[in-house]
Amino acid sequence: MEEKAEKIILGIDPGTNVMGYGVIKVEGTKASVVAMGVIDLRKAGDMYLKLGHIFQRVNGIIDGYLPDEMAIEAPFFGKNVQSMLKLGRAQGVAIAAAINHSVPITEYAPMKIKMAITGNGTASKEQVAGMLQRILHISPDDMPRFLDATDALGAAYCHYLQMGRPESSAAGPKTWKAYVSGNPDKVSKRKTKAVEN
Amino acid sequence: MEEKAEKIILGIDPGTNVMGYGVIKVEGTKASVVAMGVIDLRKAGDMYLKLGHIFQRVNGIIDGYLPDEMAIEAPFFGKNVQSMLKLGRAQGVAIAAAINHSVPITEYAPMKIKMAITGNGTASKEQVAGMLQRILHISPDDMPRFLDATDALGAAYCHYLQMGRPESSAAGPKTWKAYVSGNPDKVSKRKTKAVEN
Repeated sequence: MEEKAEKIILGIDPGTNVMGYGVIKVEGTKASVVAMGVIDLRKAGDMYLKLGHIFQRVNGIIDGYLPDEMAIEAPFFGKNVQSMLKLGRAQGVAIAAAINHSVPITEYAPMKIKMAITGNGTASKEQVAGMLQRILHISPDDMPRFLDATDALGAAYCHYLQMGRPESSAAGPKTWKAYVSGNPDKVSKRKTKAVEN
Repeated sequence: MEEKAEKIILGIDPGTNVMGYGVIKVEGTKASVVAMGVIDLRKAGDMYLKLGHIFQRVNGIIDGYLPDEMAIEAPFFGKNVQSMLKLGRAQGVAIAAAINHSVPITEYAPMKIKMAITGNGTASKEQVAGMLQRILHISPDDMPRFLDATDALGAAYCHYLQMGRPESSAAGPKTWKAYVSGNPDKVSKRKTKAVEN
């Protein structure tokens, strides 16, 4: 895989009430924050409006920052099947936006992100935020209002730690684009059976 | 809402292994099958390839048949949180494709579809298929290979029974488009906080 001198990584923490995002730029071994924010979905209306917001905003963020890769914070466990279905839908539309732009996706469990950033898989949200603030030189004034976005930023930074460093020998991300180009047989094999009347 | 003389309804049964779809055309009180099929995702590769297939195929089906509305068969319960997360993602990308085309979405629980079509909420897959075959005049030769698609066709037909009939006084579907145009304040209110460096 050819390495670009500069890499943009988008981190997403999709939720059904608040979606956080963080964009970092990696140049060599230096990472910096390009953008971070939260999308408050609590007043967005019904579920389809919420999902529509997520889809449109993630599309907009990708259009705006042209990330090379996307990292998602993806819990594997939840309170109950209802909340997991909702979470899965929110993740699904965010993933669709990335697929829509051929942006490779990698997902990380919350514990993995915490471990990568603080060295402690059970670190608190505040500890993760505090460490990111120091590493990425985020102004303390910006921290409180962006606390919901730091999880997303953490996903992006975790992805950088895993594979963003040119010297890293870690296997490349299992990307949509790379997978497609590497597995043309799997993609071209249309399994659709259709009847037209 | 202005009624068109002809209405196209797309039914989707999104799953992580097989996705069924069915398209019906409604003219007055007459409904007929336009297309039905299954997309076998079992050999599609990893999860992102599967989700990518669903997104692209649903986009393609919408481009091809220009449905006025989409109905999704959406179970509310599942075996465990893992399967519900996967199902939620599959539903999410299908929903994103509909949102992408501003196609209104309505979802129906499997029991509701069975009840609407057979009069029995616990009817078997075969009973639903048999009833749809008779109602929609599907050739018996086509039935076996489309058994996975009849659930999707059932969702479309159920939607027609619920709201497709012009004489029905049922409230219109909670559509993305209608909701947006009816609630401009909710849509324009951008809750995003962003910092650009």
